[in-house]
Amino acid sequence: MQTEEEFKDFILNGHLYYIPSVTIDCAIFGYSNRQLKLLLIKHRNRDNWSLPGGYIKRSENLIEAANRNVKDRTGVDNLYLQQFKTFGGPDRIQFDKFDKTKWTEDTGLPSWEGNWLINPTVSVAFYAITDFSKTELHTDISTELCGWFEISNVPVLEYDHDEILKEALNSMRLHLFHYPIGFNLLPEKFTLSEIHALYETLLQKKLDISNFPKKLIALGLLKKLNEKLHIGAHRSPYLYSFNKQKYEQALKDGLVLS
Amino acid sequence: MQTEEEFKDFILNGHLYYIPSVTIDCAIFGYSNRQLKLLLIKHRNRDNWSLPGGYIKRSENLIEAANRNVKDRTGVDNLYLQQFKTFGGPDRIQFDKFDKTKWTEDTGLPSWEGNWLINPTVSVAFYAITDFSKTELHTDISTELCGWFEISNVPVLEYDHDEILKEALNSMRLHLFHYPIGFNLLPEKFTLSEIHALYETLLQKKLDISNFPKKLIALGLLKKLNEKLHIGAHRSPYLYSFNKQKYEQALKDGLVLS
Repeated sequence: MQTEEEFKDFILNGHLYYIPSVTIDCAIFGYSNRQLKLLLIKHRNRDNWSLPGGYIKRSENLIEAANRNVKDRTGVDNLYLQQFKTFGGPDRIQFDKFDKTKWTEDTGLPSWEGNWLINPTVSVAFYAITDFSKTELHTDISTELCGWFEISNVPVLEYDHDEILKEALNSMRLHLFHYPIGFNLLPEKFTLSEIHALYETLLQKKLDISNFPKKLIALGLLKKLNEKLHIGAHRSPYLYSFNKQKYEQALKDGLVLS
Repeated sequence: MQTEEEFKDFILNGHLYYIPSVTIDCAIFGYSNRQLKLLLIKHRNRDNWSLPGGYIKRSENLIEAANRNVKDRTGVDNLYLQQFKTFGGPDRIQFDKFDKTKWTEDTGLPSWEGNWLINPTVSVAFYAITDFSKTELHTDISTELCGWFEISNVPVLEYDHDEILKEALNSMRLHLFHYPIGFNLLPEKFTLSEIHALYETLLQKKLDISNFPKKLIALGLLKKLNEKLHIGAHRSPYLYSFNKQKYEQALKDGLVLS
């Protein structure tokens, strides 16, 4: 949505091309150089930041809707999105707390009663991890602001997005031990200390480096190269790469690292 | 729903008390004595079996809706239900393949056009594992049959339920390494070979018994008792129990066994 006309049409007639009562929310994590960030947006007329998301078109499947919503609102494209949980319940969004004056200003409607947007919604949540240093952000008509926040410095979020974020982190961290997520954040050849830093940053805790990569090697995901990185006279760690074929297979089937 | 009147009212006016476009589906696994089964129902007027499920009341959260649906259709109560994935997309249920004559017979309506049930639905899926030997099944007005099927002998299911079942098995097996699910299927004191059989049956594959329980003990979940089971002169394995407090904590927080 880029114009005021499209925005108004969405509010008035959106139920004709979107599924009512179901939304998508996305926790997009950004990693670069031992830093973990979170992508947040600010909707027009809302006081707090929130996760990007929106409704599902009647012609879309869930992952297509997630991709489109993230791309439209933030400019970030081609994410590997992983569905992790769906949120519902009568109290998750309380419309009676909304500012009725702003609604009227935006839509020209005297009240939202009977509008398709005022329905209890169930939200299907996804997470993704991308390299935040390579993204180019932009906003759309319903999004005033968009930006990367340090994970340790995330403000209080709109709706139930604090809970969604907490669960997104839990799921991503559990999946780290089962799927090769995050490998795409490393250069093609990397040292053990680079992959170790990636995992420690995503988990936000210390990992035993001597034990950790063995499992990845045993599974055939990680390959030790006959090549070293020359940092200094006494520092030339071996380089590793990952096996693309095994990686694709693992993304599809899952792996049990335990 | 127990009467024809309630059933008709659901079809005609259900959108007033249920959220349209969102359903629940449940893969209920049953374990007992090295056997793994699946609970299936047959809706009236459908040819194939399906997973139990249904709509969400406007006053319910998702887990309450899942519990109510399973209990109403099968009689099984107090399940530990675990949400694992949500399914959507324009092709997941094709109403144009339904038998229009049966619809008219059931409802008295000449056609389903405009009816709230004829909408694309997104389905939130849950799984559970229970002891099938302790369940008592019964059906409701919209369910003709209900029963336990050997996991190796599950028929082709309605809608996209084959896919939901596949994903339920994948998720349950991944979670086995992170959550103490299934512990409630064992007697209070059990041998290593009993818990080993439970895991092998749920995973449907061989596990290294010498290595497997160490992690559970290391985490404090499993406790070796100063007590043996006397099977014969040369067979008296130690008994184990699990730590209820750690178990509850682990269900809440999750554990990383890897």
